[in-house]
Amino acid sequence: MRSLFAVASRPEIVSLAGGMPNVGALPMDTLGALMSEIVTRHGGTALQYGSAQGDPGLREQICEVMSLEGIDADPDDILVTVGSQQALDLVTRIFVNPGDAVVTEGPTYVTALGVFAAHQAHVVQVGMDRAGVVPEDLAETFARLAAEGRPAKLFYTVPTFQNPMGVTLSSGRRHQILDVCRRAGVLVLEDNPYGLLHYSSEPMRALRADDPDGVVYLGSFSKTLAPGLRVGWALAPAEVRRKLVLAAESAMLSHSTFAQLTVDRYLRTQPWQAQLGEFRSMYRARRDAMLQSLAAYMPQDVSWTIPDGGFFVWVTLPDGLDSKAMLPHALAARVAYVPGTGFYSDGRGRRHVRLSFSFPSPDDIRDGVRRLAEVVGEQERLRDALGCAPTPTKRFMSNSIHLS
Amino acid sequence: MRSLFAVASRPEIVSLAGGMPNVGALPMDTLGALMSEIVTRHGGTALQYGSAQGDPGLREQICEVMSLEGIDADPDDILVTVGSQQALDLVTRIFVNPGDAVVTEGPTYVTALGVFAAHQAHVVQVGMDRAGVVPEDLAETFARLAAEGRPAKLFYTVPTFQNPMGVTLSSGRRHQILDVCRRAGVLVLEDNPYGLLHYSSEPMRALRADDPDGVVYLGSFSKTLAPGLRVGWALAPAEVRRKLVLAAESAMLSHSTFAQLTVDRYLRTQPWQAQLGEFRSMYRARRDAMLQSLAAYMPQDVSWTIPDGGFFVWVTLPDGLDSKAMLPHALAARVAYVPGTGFYSDGRGRRHVRLSFSFPSPDDIRDGVRRLAEVVGEQERLRDALGCAPTPTKRFMSNSIHLS
Repeated sequence: MRSLFAVASRPEIVSLAGGMPNVGALPMDTLGALMSEIVTRHGGTALQYGSAQGDPGLREQICEVMSLEGIDADPDDILVTVGSQQALDLVTRIFVNPGDAVVTEGPTYVTALGVFAAHQAHVVQVGMDRAGVVPEDLAETFARLAAEGRPAKLFYTVPTFQNPMGVTLSSGRRHQILDVCRRAGVLVLEDNPYGLLHYSSEPMRALRADDPDGVVYLGSFSKTLAPGLRVGWALAPAEVRRKLVLAAESAMLSHSTFAQLTVDRYLRTQPWQAQLGEFRSMYRARRDAMLQSLAAYMPQDVSWTIPDGGFFVWVTLPDGLDSKAMLPHALAARVAYVPGTGFYSDGRGRRHVRLSFSFPSPDDIRDGVRRLAEVVGEQERLRDALGCAPTPTKRFMSNSIHLS
Repeated sequence: MRSLFAVASRPEIVSLAGGMPNVGALPMDTLGALMSEIVTRHGGTALQYGSAQGDPGLREQICEVMSLEGIDADPDDILVTVGSQQALDLVTRIFVNPGDAVVTEGPTYVTALGVFAAHQAHVVQVGMDRAGVVPEDLAETFARLAAEGRPAKLFYTVPTFQNPMGVTLSSGRRHQILDVCRRAGVLVLEDNPYGLLHYSSEPMRALRADDPDGVVYLGSFSKTLAPGLRVGWALAPAEVRRKLVLAAESAMLSHSTFAQLTVDRYLRTQPWQAQLGEFRSMYRARRDAMLQSLAAYMPQDVSWTIPDGGFFVWVTLPDGLDSKAMLPHALAARVAYVPGTGFYSDGRGRRHVRLSFSFPSPDDIRDGVRRLAEVVGEQERLRDALGCAPTPTKRFMSNSIHLS
């Protein structure tokens, strides 16, 4: 995926691959002035070591941010981390020994799979439909793992505007999922970077809002402010939080005080909810450009999800097409995406494509989708001509026949 | 130690405990202007995600910094980390499985012991004299561990202005230590946060300068610029570096681009070597205040190291005194230090005290050392009166006798 992103960053290519936020929309002058003031007026603190748990003032502000999603939290139960990625790593480090089972959605966030693999977890993925993960399937998976003698240690979920599917766990299922986890004694790891980028009127209520003891919640300012500051957090039950603080101290001593004060002052002095509203309008317009282009250009038998927030659309290709084998053709046609296989631990996902609409302009999105639609159409014609899917193996067989 | 630092931060106490740099000496207006310019002119990059390995321009600058200590490095072999603490954690994560032996100096940096403990390493500490670790003792330790069937995985060393002893591995021993490690096939982990804070004319040549394949070098801007940016690095042989980059990606995705650009622009546009010269003068004056006060106030049978750079003096108390038991008395006398036991994994160090002179002013240092000298004198009188050392156990016995 690293080499894909390298190719995708070439200027002639429209990248629908990476999930970068459009930080260019931020008020840079305001941020620059705010940072300058922090250093000139509070440099002795801002540039010094801080506490391993994170700045107390920022932790109070984080509680206010989370209250928008129905969470009632104590600043004492928050650990500030280097993006929510570090929180994910630390939680995994604490709970998962080599061979332990971790259950995730299938598909799921690619770098979460990377973290679980780094800790040698046994990852089991539970399928989703367009209302999120299916409670009965989750319960069955927990029961099977327990029967196999390795009960799940964690259930990792991105319930709202999921990466990569763009779908949201429905309100009706949220209590069922919490029930299933509680009964199985499995800790929920709720990763929620996109929750406040909702395109309908109200944010979803977080899972953590209804189960303070059974959920570790991961939040981030990477999508609501800027990833370049690397400020995220974990909200955890007190005994888990204590372990997380010790693990964070061992992993980095303390987070950047300067970065934390920057976020703190931004939240205290700037109209951040209005800025969030602007982000929502901008990303909604980009989503609309993507959905309209998909409808306008894609062949009949291609389908996709309709995200109500966040950055991603999940496309299902026609039977017999292979998103991984198709990628070089797409790059040659100057459009990039992430093949669905990246979001599974077992090679599934070949018929799927993740498209991101967060970074390119609406015009680029339209160009990119049109190019991709042409590639898909071409692959369909190839498939029909050969009478088989143009997967690498089969193409190799065809070549062999041709060469012989 | 956390509760010690909480008490030590009270305003009435002179803290000779923490090893914080004196960031107040930085040109805050210049730094504020520089940061503001980075955001207003390059915000789209500075506030975005970066690469897991770190900013290429900064990695070039880091090579220039390291060249002052004789290191010839390729920017490709550098990973930028969240302070050198994260580098220490990632190297340990890669090389150390539970039960593996890690050899360190005795005493050594307390948080390194924390990292090794978090990874369930078997820590073995090799004694030091005033010219650093003794090569023969190191060779014997490697041989013994190999004979026990668990050869050492790493030798962790702070060779220059060591934390906590303040001593420096002599030039004569440096090649011997590298030889011993090479013959035993043990990777050297050279942690060098203080190397450029030398009080004599020239910096020491780094171990890494003479063994690019056998040494992983950890550097940091926490003491030469500011810890609040959390920018450190690892320089490693290519195959180790590749693993480190993957581990860093899993641990945090990428470091703060903004923090990296701040350090990069500071090095490119500001007179950082002149600033380092000012730091050296300031810290040398503080060291002198500490050494003069120790000579003026301490009882005859107290001894200490004479650091030629860095932040620390290591004090040896008279026979029969216990630095841990003495700490509450010192805090009552309004002076704080770190008891030597914190720097050993096995409870040794009771006759030792680490004093830091980096943060308090020379006047505070003099006051602090005078207060400490009075406490030491009082402990000696107590010892002589009781005919035994006032350790917690013995004090309890004395109290019992008194109460009965």
